[in-house]
Amino acid sequence: MNEFDLIDKYFTRPPEKALLGVGDDCALLESNKGMHQCITSDMLVEGRHFLSTVDPYRLGVKSLAVNLSDLAACGATPSAFTLSLSLPQVDPHWLELFSSGIWDTALLFGMDLVGGDTTRGPLCISITAIGEVPPGDVLLRSGALEGDDIYISGTLGDAALALAVFRGFVSVDAQSFERIRTRLEQPTPRVGLGVALRGVANACIDISDGLIGDLNHILERSGVGATLGTEWINNSEAISIDMQQQSFNKRLDYVLSGGDDYELLFTASRDAREEVRFASEQSRTPVTLIGQITREKGLKVFDLRRELMQRRFTSFDHFQTHSTYD
Amino acid sequence: MNEFDLIDKYFTRPPEKALLGVGDDCALLESNKGMHQCITSDMLVEGRHFLSTVDPYRLGVKSLAVNLSDLAACGATPSAFTLSLSLPQVDPHWLELFSSGIWDTALLFGMDLVGGDTTRGPLCISITAIGEVPPGDVLLRSGALEGDDIYISGTLGDAALALAVFRGFVSVDAQSFERIRTRLEQPTPRVGLGVALRGVANACIDISDGLIGDLNHILERSGVGATLGTEWINNSEAISIDMQQQSFNKRLDYVLSGGDDYELLFTASRDAREEVRFASEQSRTPVTLIGQITREKGLKVFDLRRELMQRRFTSFDHFQTHSTYD
Repeated sequence: MNEFDLIDKYFTRPPEKALLGVGDDCALLESNKGMHQCITSDMLVEGRHFLSTVDPYRLGVKSLAVNLSDLAACGATPSAFTLSLSLPQVDPHWLELFSSGIWDTALLFGMDLVGGDTTRGPLCISITAIGEVPPGDVLLRSGALEGDDIYISGTLGDAALALAVFRGFVSVDAQSFERIRTRLEQPTPRVGLGVALRGVANACIDISDGLIGDLNHILERSGVGATLGTEWINNSEAISIDMQQQSFNKRLDYVLSGGDDYELLFTASRDAREEVRFASEQSRTPVTLIGQITREKGLKVFDLRRELMQRRFTSFDHFQTHSTYD
Repeated sequence: MNEFDLIDKYFTRPPEKALLGVGDDCALLESNKGMHQCITSDMLVEGRHFLSTVDPYRLGVKSLAVNLSDLAACGATPSAFTLSLSLPQVDPHWLELFSSGIWDTALLFGMDLVGGDTTRGPLCISITAIGEVPPGDVLLRSGALEGDDIYISGTLGDAALALAVFRGFVSVDAQSFERIRTRLEQPTPRVGLGVALRGVANACIDISDGLIGDLNHILERSGVGATLGTEWINNSEAISIDMQQQSFNKRLDYVLSGGDDYELLFTASRDAREEVRFASEQSRTPVTLIGQITREKGLKVFDLRRELMQRRFTSFDHFQTHSTYD
């Protein structure tokens, strides 16, 4: 199978929205009148972002989902993406599953695959996703205001716990493992919530490197600080059943700096609590209030007795020694 | 240096056209009223698309240039790009040179670097470029018509000759080598010519896998055939001085199926010869008439005595054994 046959067979379907999809030098998109375009790119490398044993279907889902998560964080409606793929060999079984994961996710979120590249080389997946947002409605990291509530969507720490199980550091029962490994391998991008938060949230980011690290991006960009409680770690949906079996301190690590969550972290005015609840219901996405934005810079985390915690929390960095898959 | 410092230091400058560049979950672009967006992605892998010894500045230039060449082939005006980079290590000297090559090329063609990703892994460069074209003016592979003239821009075969020198198959004098290796390592995307050919060319593609292979894409998409002469290989600017020193048959190989040329191959009506000449002058890009589109399918190449050549010409395929860098 040559390069063009491979693209034809696995990565070409007629586009729904794009004027021209795969097959020419460029794809052609028409912008909806007056809408702004959101662009994001993510690269996934074997051994760094996924285990070499991962199911190819799930890898396809995740490759697109991590980009959708960035669009969600900006409140964008997904429209199209390109896929560049470096493959060690042409394995029809692998390609069939991987491309199915890509297509199923694309269909679910109304995206056209409009182009890309395939080449032989170390397994590396690079996607650029494009979405649309009405002018003025884009959600940025820089909009957090003093007094804002801080929220997260869904549950945190599951992906990090699943990785700890893979690495043999922790064990959980088989049913729990299936659930949390799905969170690691097929994260759910919060696209519906992002769109529902247009005009409601003041700042937003997706949590990919851990809550603390990504909250710090909002604080730096917005020139503010924050206080976080930890009681929600015991009391809310923001921690899954499997995580409840871990000690509180272990849970803190997973939840605050686990990474690979692909949940939204956002801030909104105290006056907007009703709108946040409505956005959560409308998008069927649980959200949890976890803290407040402060004028004083820096991040303070309070323990269950409401005392300031002194310990440091790390965040994931692709160039430091702290890496999840090395 | 962590991932964010690296992006800040080497890959962040205020955008000229984009509403929002590097630093948030997405970049934000505003489309010019009524314009269509052209999107293209190319991935370059060490050992496959470039030699590991290549000068990092030139690699930066080439990485963006190959994407610009695709925009040129569609007649698009470049606007923005994203860069995803997998690096074996953080080498400040390498990054300084590579990013300079990227920025110099971006500046030359009026493009904003608006986002991307960096991670540790095998050296792999993935760029998605975006350009604009007025509705109806996009140049496609599918528009060639019976009787059209077939043209190429610039010179062909230089890059393939340079690679043959690198591999020790051929030798040329030092000055010639410097010139042809620049053609291999820093191709010139024909963006000006592409824009000038709007409304003039009927079909267009950029030559990356060799003239024969890329002409076949036009023929297949357009449902037509072609005849090519070979006398232009001796008589025109389409063959460089260094190539003239090779035997005619060797030259045929380099010119017809060498690859890595990044010249435009386009067709236009016989009645448009004056407009083609004007587009060439306007963009200061030499073009050469090399053949005609025929109703009868298939590609016929005629030798200097105007006899049909029986030999097969190959084209570059990233998944076949014929690979330039393996």
